[in-house]
Amino acid sequence: MKNDLLIRAAKGESIDRYPVWIMRQAGRILPEYRAVRSSVKDFKALVKNPELCCEVTLQPVDILGVDAAIIFSDILVVPEAMGLDYEMIEQKGPWFEKTIRTSDDLSLISGNIDVSDRLSYVLEAISLTKKTLDGRVPLIGFAGAPWTIFCYMVEGKGSKTFSESRKILYQNPILAHNLLSQITDVTIEYLKLQMKHGADLVQVFDSWAGILSRAQYQEFCLPYLTKICNAITEIPITIFAKGASASLSDLAKLNCNILGLDWNMDINSTRELVNETKTLQGNLDPCVLYGTQQNIELETKKMLSSFKSKRHIVNLGHGIYPDTDFEKVKTFINTVKNHEIN
Amino acid sequence: MKNDLLIRAAKGESIDRYPVWIMRQAGRILPEYRAVRSSVKDFKALVKNPELCCEVTLQPVDILGVDAAIIFSDILVVPEAMGLDYEMIEQKGPWFEKTIRTSDDLSLISGNIDVSDRLSYVLEAISLTKKTLDGRVPLIGFAGAPWTIFCYMVEGKGSKTFSESRKILYQNPILAHNLLSQITDVTIEYLKLQMKHGADLVQVFDSWAGILSRAQYQEFCLPYLTKICNAITEIPITIFAKGASASLSDLAKLNCNILGLDWNMDINSTRELVNETKTLQGNLDPCVLYGTQQNIELETKKMLSSFKSKRHIVNLGHGIYPDTDFEKVKTFINTVKNHEIN
Repeated sequence: MKNDLLIRAAKGESIDRYPVWIMRQAGRILPEYRAVRSSVKDFKALVKNPELCCEVTLQPVDILGVDAAIIFSDILVVPEAMGLDYEMIEQKGPWFEKTIRTSDDLSLISGNIDVSDRLSYVLEAISLTKKTLDGRVPLIGFAGAPWTIFCYMVEGKGSKTFSESRKILYQNPILAHNLLSQITDVTIEYLKLQMKHGADLVQVFDSWAGILSRAQYQEFCLPYLTKICNAITEIPITIFAKGASASLSDLAKLNCNILGLDWNMDINSTRELVNETKTLQGNLDPCVLYGTQQNIELETKKMLSSFKSKRHIVNLGHGIYPDTDFEKVKTFINTVKNHEIN
Repeated sequence: MKNDLLIRAAKGESIDRYPVWIMRQAGRILPEYRAVRSSVKDFKALVKNPELCCEVTLQPVDILGVDAAIIFSDILVVPEAMGLDYEMIEQKGPWFEKTIRTSDDLSLISGNIDVSDRLSYVLEAISLTKKTLDGRVPLIGFAGAPWTIFCYMVEGKGSKTFSESRKILYQNPILAHNLLSQITDVTIEYLKLQMKHGADLVQVFDSWAGILSRAQYQEFCLPYLTKICNAITEIPITIFAKGASASLSDLAKLNCNILGLDWNMDINSTRELVNETKTLQGNLDPCVLYGTQQNIELETKKMLSSFKSKRHIVNLGHGIYPDTDFEKVKTFINTVKNHEIN
């Protein structure tokens, strides 16, 4: 590996500068991505095309000079593989025709599937990207956390309150655990296959972690994240539980190498929770990139100077906003790259 | 006052049971409310009609037996009074034709208005309700927190990321403080007038508190909440900063009688922050009310038994969901009323 900064930081090995990559870097802000995207019918046509996935995965490495590639895909490939087809509606987001609301609905899905067959297009994309990268930077694979996938399977779309999903936790916890358990099994197999096909690190996105209380997160999320972390031991694994500020002390106990922090989580108090056992990833507010070049440098340096450990991977605290100016992103990345660690 | 439990609890005086009311009780779940609502053209026609506001404010007191009435109104009457007209679009939420994005846009609004004139319809509704209540239960007035009103003025509608609002905090903090300051002045005058017209307690809703980091909340929200709390000294004031878990230790220092907790905030750790200086209000997950009667009783009793102080006002941790079964709400309220404090 020519640039193994990310892996070294993930393992707590010595580094001379912090590695940096950007959530949703493979897409959203690059005109080169938009050109590829507009060459196909829709978002899913892109996700299912390994050659194009490889192409857009490499774009930010070439153009932005980030320290890692993250495979272009979507967390919703897992519910689809389990039996729930989805559409990605422009400007609106995902939409599932069928949803899981009752125990009977479980017949719509299966956790006992041939993941390597159903998700072969992602695995091919990973193999191809790994080969094309030729060791320039590490390749990150990913999946949604069981709770987040559960939410999509139950709501069938995004939601402000996720009240249908949370309703099940109170009304039918057995159904909830059954579904979460099936998603977990598929996710573990999927992440292992990603590793087998070339992922150097995997990240689990718990995008809807923030809508649960700590007690519910302990009951319905942490056991499944624990199972996933304990199953992925050969490569580093990142858990990013957005909004789960109340559960940080629980997340700190997971058997993962990296904890992702959103922009509202405090780096230094989280450092106290994990000591030097984990690397922290994040967490610049993506809104900072709307500022002037000078302000972006200032805020980025402020964050970097606040680090009291070398165990950091720099990223935004959430996905980059689509209308972010490309030059501002470069400023952020270059500021991190020019910051020497004492 | 025949039933002054809420005021006694707010002031930390002795009570023999916990008072209970429900956020968004004046509306949403009662068929009687829907009947009134469908008798007028739209939501705003209801908000601007003091007689009808009085009628729907009293409904939950009569039908549900709650320990307080909260005036039927909307937090968006303040931005409207300041110059930004809004529409409430069915199933979608509020929409403002004009928004504040630049310093020039400040000419669209004014903080120097005759609040008693512009918001006379709310004040009349309060006077009428106070008179009609005839001391049965206390009457709660309310307003949005400056940050939350700022968000609506900038975005012009709801948002997932509120990135336009947060962008201004980085790009033009002077504009942000100018606007927040104007909103604060109007809000203080508005709350004082509510008190003068009969409100026994006022609540400030900071619905979008959760999208800011602790540092930003300290810079752009707490100074204005402090100003409001310090201005309202004759009646109890409640601050409800939804999602502001990271800022609880700062909120604990406000000069307010009551802190509202959302369902993700932990009652006992917040109690440690405030000791016996404040009353806590909340925080049952509104999703609990989707459960069986038995389960609702169980979860409500679990919450009540966890209280280590008498300084509590029972409520949900967020607004009640519109599809909640009326009988389930009764179960929640009756469980609280039947719970004796030792």
